[in-house]
Amino acid sequence: MKIIEGGVCAAKGFSANGLWCGIRKNKTKKDLALIVCEVPCTAAAVYTANLVKGAPLIVNQAHLRDGRAQAVICNSGIANTCNADGIEVAEKMAELAGQALGLPAADVLVGSTGVIGQPLPVAPIAAALPELAAGLSADAAGSDRAEAAIMTTDTQPKSVAVAFELDGKVCHLGGIAKGSGMIHPNLATMLVYLTTDAAISAEMLQAALSEDVRHTFNMTSVDGDTSTNDNVILMASGLAGNTPVTAPGGDFDTFMRALNTVTVALCRMIAGDGEGATRLLECSVTGAADEAAAKKIAKAVICSSLVKAAMFGADANWGRVLCAIGYAGAPVDVSRVAVTFRSAAGEVLVCENGSGVAFSEEEAKAILLEKEIDIVIALGDGDASATAWGCDLTYDYVKINGDYRT
Amino acid sequence: MKIIEGGVCAAKGFSANGLWCGIRKNKTKKDLALIVCEVPCTAAAVYTANLVKGAPLIVNQAHLRDGRAQAVICNSGIANTCNADGIEVAEKMAELAGQALGLPAADVLVGSTGVIGQPLPVAPIAAALPELAAGLSADAAGSDRAEAAIMTTDTQPKSVAVAFELDGKVCHLGGIAKGSGMIHPNLATMLVYLTTDAAISAEMLQAALSEDVRHTFNMTSVDGDTSTNDNVILMASGLAGNTPVTAPGGDFDTFMRALNTVTVALCRMIAGDGEGATRLLECSVTGAADEAAAKKIAKAVICSSLVKAAMFGADANWGRVLCAIGYAGAPVDVSRVAVTFRSAAGEVLVCENGSGVAFSEEEAKAILLEKEIDIVIALGDGDASATAWGCDLTYDYVKINGDYRT
Repeated sequence: MKIIEGGVCAAKGFSANGLWCGIRKNKTKKDLALIVCEVPCTAAAVYTANLVKGAPLIVNQAHLRDGRAQAVICNSGIANTCNADGIEVAEKMAELAGQALGLPAADVLVGSTGVIGQPLPVAPIAAALPELAAGLSADAAGSDRAEAAIMTTDTQPKSVAVAFELDGKVCHLGGIAKGSGMIHPNLATMLVYLTTDAAISAEMLQAALSEDVRHTFNMTSVDGDTSTNDNVILMASGLAGNTPVTAPGGDFDTFMRALNTVTVALCRMIAGDGEGATRLLECSVTGAADEAAAKKIAKAVICSSLVKAAMFGADANWGRVLCAIGYAGAPVDVSRVAVTFRSAAGEVLVCENGSGVAFSEEEAKAILLEKEIDIVIALGDGDASATAWGCDLTYDYVKINGDYRT
Repeated sequence: MKIIEGGVCAAKGFSANGLWCGIRKNKTKKDLALIVCEVPCTAAAVYTANLVKGAPLIVNQAHLRDGRAQAVICNSGIANTCNADGIEVAEKMAELAGQALGLPAADVLVGSTGVIGQPLPVAPIAAALPELAAGLSADAAGSDRAEAAIMTTDTQPKSVAVAFELDGKVCHLGGIAKGSGMIHPNLATMLVYLTTDAAISAEMLQAALSEDVRHTFNMTSVDGDTSTNDNVILMASGLAGNTPVTAPGGDFDTFMRALNTVTVALCRMIAGDGEGATRLLECSVTGAADEAAAKKIAKAVICSSLVKAAMFGADANWGRVLCAIGYAGAPVDVSRVAVTFRSAAGEVLVCENGSGVAFSEEEAKAILLEKEIDIVIALGDGDASATAWGCDLTYDYVKINGDYRT
């Protein structure tokens, strides 16, 4: 498997574009993205667990009932959520994009991200679609324009792709993501668009995506708020020419590894670029009694405001890690817990058998001043493990969210 | 029922004191408190739900097995949690206090609050106990000194008391609390010491306290972190001379009302003085299908980092309230939800039937600039209700917790 360029356009058949259409006031920020495949794709998706679901998600659930899609249109600036006319507007977006591309509306998926509860105007989208469609390109530049258009408070674009082999054919799988705030297990304001040219049935595509998000996007938290508009979409064009994957087995496993490589990379980008973040946190738990316990503990640590604030201050306050382990809701023998902080600058054991051990504060500080920090927890209760991703809690998180709308 | 002075010394028989003994470096901050009754008391307590429990809590559980206590000794600065010798040290504190007061160690309860994982030295406590015991006084000044000694990052003392009548006799119930960070349902770094002179059996005292905390301390959150050292203790001297309350009925209900008046007041003080807080938030949910749903929703809203940050910015971003309702984990018909922001400056309806309604941003801003904000949620699903308390998320929360230990 090889990391390659191209993002959402790395897979054969896909092109993309992004531009400013006028939903945002700031003309220097793109706000409308289009991703299109030259052939119909099998498609799979996962949706936020929030009972309040953005209108685009309701429309996507209907459009994906046949496991088939060919394009995605997505705006940023306004979430199209909690609007009386939301579904109507989301359907209209699909219809307008379909008209511009010569596709049935039912094969177009829709995304929106931004402020909840503001009406989303259709006119700027309708007016911009001819230019948006005309500017589609099947290269990294097209993918980058689409990525720029779905970003909200993101400071960094998030894009990755891999090449891998199935059945002797070179396949590609890549994607773009937006993250930032409201990022929390099950899911987040994450919009993630993944494309592949591997041939794979809609059923196996959904199986792959559903299993993968359990370990990736559902283990990523920026601020504990589960957004209303999260949506991960995976489209497969089949243009790589491999024998279609229609059942579990070696090819499916290879596909899962490619998918996981891309999604873990995107999760790390999303967590590391959390609103106001200065540090990417990875919490790995080993020695848990079962996977559920490992996941609960990794998530609790990554979600703790106090752990997050301590990491912002590069303060090796491991007691807060123990505290989060204790309230995670998983049965754990606290007297066997060991905690290590690790980064590019080295590692330091701070707790063993549930109690503090002597360590150099200076050395710990140097380790925690790095940009990527691993909080490594060994439980000693069994063989299960899990990893979660998050970020530190900073002044800028408060600043960004203290007055987001104005 | 009447609010009175005196805090933890308002009830007959109780005296208190607090001083600096040397656990904290800063000599201007008291760090050791003592509360004593002149007669043995029936006593009840509730403890943190965290699996990592501070050593004092383990000792208190043992000392309270007989439902009886006569004194509390509590230090701030170090939590005596995750220390290999923690229980030994906590037992020693009870023993030393007992010696100074002429009481068996088993009738002394222990509390510690502060940094987790640092050894707690016994020597400064032993050295200070004679002076601490000699300075006990049965008045508001004594209560205030004890309160000052249990505070950590609290900026305001938290003390309240009421007078009420049972069986024709005037009774008193009062208490002191420390709050600030790690405040979260089930419970928090809350230490709350309550005293009463009502005569009430240990069994009914525990029943009253256990029922009350469900609606008060367990509905209060500052930062979502459930502390390791939370402990609410309620001691009853019986010196008011009423016929002892030994069963449910009118007198028990009266006692519950007195207790609830004191605990709600302390919860509001704790939430309003959350670390870095500039605003007290109260979220009241009505029209829920059942109490569990009402409680889940009220807690989810009060715990949302995004709602908290919006309140800091006085931003009427009600979409975040809807979002929190949606992920609270309670079944709710989102299309019936109404949300109102209310304060001393007025009230504004911002959402009805799950969608936004037109409102004046200027008027909303004026309402949200007040110190106490009510987020009023009407669900329309049934008759159950609940209230939760919290605070806004501010730069100072991050500052305080970014480098707490140094």
